[in-house]
Amino acid sequence: MGKHTPLVQKLIDALRVLPSVGPKSAQRMAYQLLERNREAGLQLASALHSAMTKVGHCQRCRTFCEGQICQICAHPIRGQSSLLCIVASAADLFAIEQTGLFAGRYFVLRGQLSPLDGVGPTELGLDALSQQLGQGKIEEVILATNPTVEGEATAFYIAELCRKHRVQVSRLAQGMPVGGELEFLDGSTLSYALSGRKPF
Amino acid sequence: MGKHTPLVQKLIDALRVLPSVGPKSAQRMAYQLLERNREAGLQLASALHSAMTKVGHCQRCRTFCEGQICQICAHPIRGQSSLLCIVASAADLFAIEQTGLFAGRYFVLRGQLSPLDGVGPTELGLDALSQQLGQGKIEEVILATNPTVEGEATAFYIAELCRKHRVQVSRLAQGMPVGGELEFLDGSTLSYALSGRKPF
Repeated sequence: MGKHTPLVQKLIDALRVLPSVGPKSAQRMAYQLLERNREAGLQLASALHSAMTKVGHCQRCRTFCEGQICQICAHPIRGQSSLLCIVASAADLFAIEQTGLFAGRYFVLRGQLSPLDGVGPTELGLDALSQQLGQGKIEEVILATNPTVEGEATAFYIAELCRKHRVQVSRLAQGMPVGGELEFLDGSTLSYALSGRKPF
Repeated sequence: MGKHTPLVQKLIDALRVLPSVGPKSAQRMAYQLLERNREAGLQLASALHSAMTKVGHCQRCRTFCEGQICQICAHPIRGQSSLLCIVASAADLFAIEQTGLFAGRYFVLRGQLSPLDGVGPTELGLDALSQQLGQGKIEEVILATNPTVEGEATAFYIAELCRKHRVQVSRLAQGMPVGGELEFLDGSTLSYALSGRKPF
């Protein structure tokens, strides 16, 4: 009889779709909500439902948006910027916005090139990007894809696209992360840091 | 403009009611569901809603239950057992069930005595326990409250209640946890282990 009731088991299974939530944490979450905070559980249910059904994508940059066009694309200055930053996800866009240093606009890819998983240029939505580059309003593209194999492949592909449209391309700097310890850096990062050294 | 859209922000705030989910994890969860698995997000919303509204408590032992009486209390043999195990929460009941070693029935407290937080004997539902003890069908009560100050206080209080009803009382053994290292055990645990030593 060491079983949860059917609805509790269903809740535990459903909670496991959340990243880094295993069976034990899911059980703890379910029991805590049931025992102490059913009101908050119901609020979470309704917040999830609203977000999943009502949050769409900006028609221009494709970040999350509740209307047709996101705040950045609709901004009178930023929306007209000639600087376009390309990121792999809305979460990456948010991380860059948090620095407060970038005043251009974005284009959000639908992931990164990964032919083995069936993710090609079309799946990423590069047609729409190509169209935007073709309009001649963009002067520089900043590639902010991840420093991984897939991210690099995506960056190379888009750089090619930019050259075709005669748009300047740059890539986020690679090197030592702030607060990291040199001793524990991997070889590739260290070689990037060495070859990209700057006058001090 | 480093802001989430209102619905995304609401979802992130709502996710933070889950235990050990901070602002960063909540953001990651929200973005992952929105980007990759809206279907699962909707399923989670409906599982949460059903569980929060439909899971009640067993009228006899008060563990989670979707009907009037839980499976254990309704069991022809276990439900009539003269052995009653007292736990502080349904999660504790589940942990004991998982061992598969206990064949009696349970009584689930609503937490543990904590006068400073306004949790007294009435809040724990000890009247119902006292009534069950008074029916004369219980021969032994096993106290399985937590080995903490509140848990001990609760255990003492219930032991007193049992003595009044002339019911035998026992407490879960305290000592070295399996797989622990003696060197790192705290002093109190080590003294329990010493004073409770057994012939080998």
